[in-house]
Amino acid sequence: MSGPRFQRLAIIGIGLMGSSLARAVKRAGLARTVVAADHNPAHCDQARALGLVDDMVADPRQAAKDADLVMICTPVSTYAEIGERMAPALKPGAIVSDIGSVKQAVIRDLGPILPEGVHLVPGHPVAGTEKSGPEAGFAELFDGRWCILTPPPGTDPAATDATRALWEGVGMTVEIMDPGHHDMVLAITSHLPHLIAYTIVGTATNLEESLKGEVIKYSAGGFRDFTRIAASDPIMWRDVFLNNREAVLEMLQRFNEDLTALQRAIRWGEGQVLEDLFRRTRDIRRGIIDAKQA
Amino acid sequence: MSGPRFQRLAIIGIGLMGSSLARAVKRAGLARTVVAADHNPAHCDQARALGLVDDMVADPRQAAKDADLVMICTPVSTYAEIGERMAPALKPGAIVSDIGSVKQAVIRDLGPILPEGVHLVPGHPVAGTEKSGPEAGFAELFDGRWCILTPPPGTDPAATDATRALWEGVGMTVEIMDPGHHDMVLAITSHLPHLIAYTIVGTATNLEESLKGEVIKYSAGGFRDFTRIAASDPIMWRDVFLNNREAVLEMLQRFNEDLTALQRAIRWGEGQVLEDLFRRTRDIRRGIIDAKQA
Repeated sequence: MSGPRFQRLAIIGIGLMGSSLARAVKRAGLARTVVAADHNPAHCDQARALGLVDDMVADPRQAAKDADLVMICTPVSTYAEIGERMAPALKPGAIVSDIGSVKQAVIRDLGPILPEGVHLVPGHPVAGTEKSGPEAGFAELFDGRWCILTPPPGTDPAATDATRALWEGVGMTVEIMDPGHHDMVLAITSHLPHLIAYTIVGTATNLEESLKGEVIKYSAGGFRDFTRIAASDPIMWRDVFLNNREAVLEMLQRFNEDLTALQRAIRWGEGQVLEDLFRRTRDIRRGIIDAKQA
Repeated sequence: MSGPRFQRLAIIGIGLMGSSLARAVKRAGLARTVVAADHNPAHCDQARALGLVDDMVADPRQAAKDADLVMICTPVSTYAEIGERMAPALKPGAIVSDIGSVKQAVIRDLGPILPEGVHLVPGHPVAGTEKSGPEAGFAELFDGRWCILTPPPGTDPAATDATRALWEGVGMTVEIMDPGHHDMVLAITSHLPHLIAYTIVGTATNLEESLKGEVIKYSAGGFRDFTRIAASDPIMWRDVFLNNREAVLEMLQRFNEDLTALQRAIRWGEGQVLEDLFRRTRDIRRGIIDAKQA
């Protein structure tokens, strides 16, 4: 292939994920032109100062015009409005994709809005940090991580292939998955861990004043790892929970049952129950280290 | 002061913590002789091969003989037996201390056993990793972290000062605290986070086979941080929960109430409740970063 894979890539939202993608696409020379839209003027200024994209605009419609591929990198609750706004400007054959942590809701919100001849290929690069904003991004964010694509039935394979090429081009390994299955897998590997981290950090903030200062001081005993996760973007995570309600509630129910069993074991001094679980959980860690995802 | 602070330091248990202490004491030249005891022959062999101590023995009584300071670095459930075994060999004026994550239970178990003239100064260096064994230790483990000492009422201040000097000598900042208060603070900053991490990793291991492999594959979304915590030593943590039952159950109850409130907010789509919490928890993270404990 001569020249870049994409003529014009539009990134909607230039926060942690969008700015990391812009950097990684530049690094790999994957697009002739990269344009981004963000409704936050401060984000626009930062992106311009950092030289992240060729053109930085406020209006998603302007960015999406003539784009081969539009990548939505904003919280999931904004998709419908962004889709409505972009729709008239999308050229026939354009691909609309996204990086959202839930996938059924994306198909629900964007599917009916996009014009005939525009391809919807929802995606989820499983990577991130607890930081936010254009300055927090970095080109290596995607290296060696997994990206899940959830094209709805009937999607043009060429559109899926093009989206796959983008993520592979920035260092990811791509898997195709049913959107409902994605939402269930991520409910346990990502959404529930975040919910629990937010909860325990919230519990600590509600403590009596005599304890609260000491929680920060002695956080090295395990708590600080939860605070890192619980520092993730509030709007993005609000939207995840609201848009993956059933799967999150299902996993939360299972977690609650297991926690109640442990609570009972502690109350009744059943050391063997605790020890057996604590040995089993060690094996999962080994699996993650072996899979090079540690 | 001329020469090292301690003539003979005995370390009982040469795992992650004991071996880290041995390394840090050598680095700082804090003791003329460091002797360690471990009932695990593999640990003894490794410690000898690594040259961690001057003398490596199986029997805690042998290690404790003539020691100025005996530091117990084994799971809390072993303290009573180790104390009984060492008691006849302890010299008058010797200090017995420990690194256990609970403190009231230590006073309960060791207080009545130690001979007249021997000082009990329980302690808790708030540092660690999820790894275990003599090879996992490193001298820098304690650098810049907090160590809490909980001497019972009436403890000789000179004994507390000597124990403080040891931990300050390996790079820690020492605080004196009431043992009951310690157990409550650590219940929220360390014990509950571990319990929750063990639970969620356990919930994942109970999943249908179709989901289980994918949990490892896509763990980068948050889950892997929990697996690291849930890889911590099973015996040590069993003992923590069994020996800090009341405080852990109290904090668990508060956590459960908060989690139920969030569950309800998700079920009823109350986005503002979620967003408000997620903003509050960000502030705690900033506090930890400002306190240089991140």
